Amino acid sequence: MTDPKNFEAPDLQAIRTAAERIRPYAHRTPVLTCSSLNKMTGSELFFKCENLQKVGAFKFRGAANTVFSLSENEVAGGVATHSSGNHAQALALAARLRGIPAHIVMPENSPKVKVAAVRDYGARIVFCPPTQRDREQTLEKVVAETGATFIHPYDNLRIIAGQGTCALELLDQVPGLQIVMAPVGGGGLLSGTALSCAHLDPKIRVFAAEPKGADDAFRSIRDGRIYPSENPQTIADGLRTSLGTRTFPIIRRYVERIVTVEEQSIVAAMRHIWERMKILVEPSAAVPFAAVLEGDFQTRGRRIGIILSGGNVDLDTLPWL
Amino acid sequence: MTDPKNFEAPDLQAIRTAAERIRPYAHRTPVLTCSSLNKMTGSELFFKCENLQKVGAFKFRGAANTVFSLSENEVAGGVATHSSGNHAQALALAARLRGIPAHIVMPENSPKVKVAAVRDYGARIVFCPPTQRDREQTLEKVVAETGATFIHPYDNLRIIAGQGTCALELLDQVPGLQIVMAPVGGGGLLSGTALSCAHLDPKIRVFAAEPKGADDAFRSIRDGRIYPSENPQTIADGLRTSLGTRTFPIIRRYVERIVTVEEQSIVAAMRHIWERMKILVEPSAAVPFAAVLEGDFQTRGRRIGIILSGGNVDLDTLPWL
Repeated sequence: MTDPKNFEAPDLQAIRTAAERIRPYAHRTPVLTCSSLNKMTGSELFFKCENLQKVGAFKFRGAANTVFSLSENEVAGGVATHSSGNHAQALALAARLRGIPAHIVMPENSPKVKVAAVRDYGARIVFCPPTQRDREQTLEKVVAETGATFIHPYDNLRIIAGQGTCALELLDQVPGLQIVMAPVGGGGLLSGTALSCAHLDPKIRVFAAEPKGADDAFRSIRDGRIYPSENPQTIADGLRTSLGTRTFPIIRRYVERIVTVEEQSIVAAMRHIWERMKILVEPSAAVPFAAVLEGDFQTRGRRIGIILSGGNVDLDTLPWL
Repeated sequence: MTDPKNFEAPDLQAIRTAAERIRPYAHRTPVLTCSSLNKMTGSELFFKCENLQKVGAFKFRGAANTVFSLSENEVAGGVATHSSGNHAQALALAARLRGIPAHIVMPENSPKVKVAAVRDYGARIVFCPPTQRDREQTLEKVVAETGATFIHPYDNLRIIAGQGTCALELLDQVPGLQIVMAPVGGGGLLSGTALSCAHLDPKIRVFAAEPKGADDAFRSIRDGRIYPSENPQTIADGLRTSLGTRTFPIIRRYVERIVTVEEQSIVAAMRHIWERMKILVEPSAAVPFAAVLEGDFQTRGRRIGIILSGGNVDLDTLPWL
């Protein structure tokens, strides 16, 4: 499983097909630039705004690609997942668009706003105690009862192909990028991004960014084995998961480096983006720009594409207040 | 001065020339849509994102058009204005881009963040006591000393032509609009918007929106005379000014109606835009959407363009906290 020479990954055609498949449903998100952030960093930054994607996150790309590529038979019982985050909303919306049920297992302590959002998209919510074990057991039960197809949030080739459509667009929108950056949690976005760059322009260097307090991906790649994410300590709630057996070898093969950043840099990066670019990003989305701010690798004078992964935040509790 | 039959206004050519003139400097801002806000209102809303414009507000359009259309002679002493808001930043940046001095008179109690922004754009700041009279007198003194050309924030035909470029773009980006809405303070954006719509597609109905607590424009148009804005009570700090002799007759002639809205609707509209669209807008920019939410005119089923005028907010004091 951890042999980088022998793994499955979507090819360029699979990612292009995903892009065609989700086109009627997903936004082609804009790329924004900001002269004050360029000046601050000495780089040319191109921000791919997945915070402006449907459901406010890139997750809709993978969910839509997966839901719309399943056969009639496979979706007869609907789809199911466990998630308290953006994947839950993404899968709920994709299922509604296809007209099939979505069963979402959520921890009973999930923020009310997230529960309401999933419900708004028409999904059935099944609550469970807030442990990983309970989430998995409840999901198994739901799948057994309903015949739903389980859609993993990232360790799934269709999900990865869907997330890869984001970099496909970015490279079409901005010629001549030298570096492309994405945050890494479970690695769905990162592996899709790395594949699209490798297929389209192998000279592009792909960098990932991760909180120091949740650096399991950094350690996993360094040591060549998947470490579970244990007791992660970060405000970037989307990046607390561990790599999967699908995403690990792709990242190992195609990502040049995983940069880890301090919490205070994440908050500073998030606030800079809000203040200067006038867009909302969630903490996870600010992690790559935090890495640019920390300056631990050469960014000056470079054309850098940065994927802003999402914008779902609780407006009542901002991290700088 | 208040005879609507006899007034000067930029023609279509003047607005098109302004668009050409500012193209190298200004963003062609994106138009965003949001299915949840459409669902909430039963309309098709197209948001023209001037919060993503340079300096975070439409004001840069007018300032850039004016600064770059002045003769060498006219700019020999630089440009000057009094403003504590977005016009100050816009004029400062436009002047820096042309390589001429900008002298900005600001009340000594201006928020530090606004003073810092104007200084960052390289302008010279002259502080004055925080009254209208002191602002005007200080400005006169600055102009006398420096020979700078005074650039009024809205009551200026070049400013109006510049602001008109925003609707020019919007109508190019979104065909078939039935209604276009803008907020009204001094009326620069509104008169430019109304002119572009009237010139390009006179069937489009132009609606303005204004806080009830600062309804001088509403009363001015109703009674056919310019009322000064006295002791305005609104969170929408960009809309506390009164109409000018240039903007009043244009608005009187081309704007169908000025809708006034409650403060609580402005805060609700602002929060909805942040939460659902993932973009920052300042209270003034949320006023037209507040009018749609209040539902005092027919919006259901209509294709409505809404100009989000700016996104400059203090992130430490959000109105819902």
